[in-house]
Amino acid sequence: MNNRIITINREYGSGGRIIGKLLSEKLGIPYYDKEIISLTAKKSGFTEDFVKEASEKKTVSLLYSLYMTSLPVSDQIFLAQSQVIKDISENEESCVIVGGCADYVLRELNCCFKVFIHAPLEERVRRVREEYGETADDYRNYVIKQDKRRVTYYNYFTQNKWGHANDYNLTIDSSLGLENCAEIIAEAAKRNN
Amino acid sequence: MNNRIITINREYGSGGRIIGKLLSEKLGIPYYDKEIISLTAKKSGFTEDFVKEASEKKTVSLLYSLYMTSLPVSDQIFLAQSQVIKDISENEESCVIVGGCADYVLRELNCCFKVFIHAPLEERVRRVREEYGETADDYRNYVIKQDKRRVTYYNYFTQNKWGHANDYNLTIDSSLGLENCAEIIAEAAKRNN
Repeated sequence: MNNRIITINREYGSGGRIIGKLLSEKLGIPYYDKEIISLTAKKSGFTEDFVKEASEKKTVSLLYSLYMTSLPVSDQIFLAQSQVIKDISENEESCVIVGGCADYVLRELNCCFKVFIHAPLEERVRRVREEYGETADDYRNYVIKQDKRRVTYYNYFTQNKWGHANDYNLTIDSSLGLENCAEIIAEAAKRNN
Repeated sequence: MNNRIITINREYGSGGRIIGKLLSEKLGIPYYDKEIISLTAKKSGFTEDFVKEASEKKTVSLLYSLYMTSLPVSDQIFLAQSQVIKDISENEESCVIVGGCADYVLRELNCCFKVFIHAPLEERVRRVREEYGETADDYRNYVIKQDKRRVTYYNYFTQNKWGHANDYNLTIDSSLGLENCAEIIAEAAKRNN
């Protein structure tokens, strides 16, 4: 596999992050996810926690917004994160990048293989409750809210529409099984020359 | 592969029909596409040409519409076609069904593996011009119009939105190559237990 960057967008609770990790292990290539947050924090000067919050929300706290006089903070962080992702794409021959709107940031690169992972709501609620170790009063409501944040963030910062098949090389329902999904994506990405 | 029905929706010019045929050969299972038109014609009493026209358009000629006093003709044909697809799903252990909103008609069947095939517009225009043997003054415009018919028909007769990843087990950009797509879909469908 030459110079292949696989970007993954995923619905909350779909297991997309786990699939991304399995995929990177299968292909023997680096995996970027939380590393992007810490690299963006270093680049932007904000704390990791703040970058993490801003990376999933279109708007951030009023206090920070009032403090800044130029671009809104969320836009500054998005730009810093985009630069981090571009740097990764230049420095790595191949890798898996989860989140960060990497599919959109790297849209000009032909070597990019863009993947979207989803699953039925009930399946995602089950996974979050039983496997992610998250606590919530109403898991269904919690998953829906987390998803809304992702959709709003993605649709605000990109010109794509979240979850539209045409924006991806491959989309897959992770009900197929996380290991199976990683196998299928690896097989498809290898054939994308 | 037990009792597996693979439904395929495809953008015009994406090569989805060819992929469906390759897939059925790979899996050694029957393939339904144009056969659905002739079976629907028999069931509804309309001619094959008329059914074909109605199967890709929400509205049909005024003459037929005036003639009928009950359901609009297009709705009658959709209902007849849906029954044909349901009959196929009951009679065949496994098969590939292309078009006919089969993914929606068979939405209650857990054994259904739903696929959407797309490709960038320029790639589809090239395929229609060079491979399909179709003639048009403006191929780009022709492909866009054919697509609009499919989208309008699908969105009218189903409660889904054409091309939305969440409605499918797998969506794939056929730029990967038709043979490759058939391989990937076959591999995914086999793992869908």
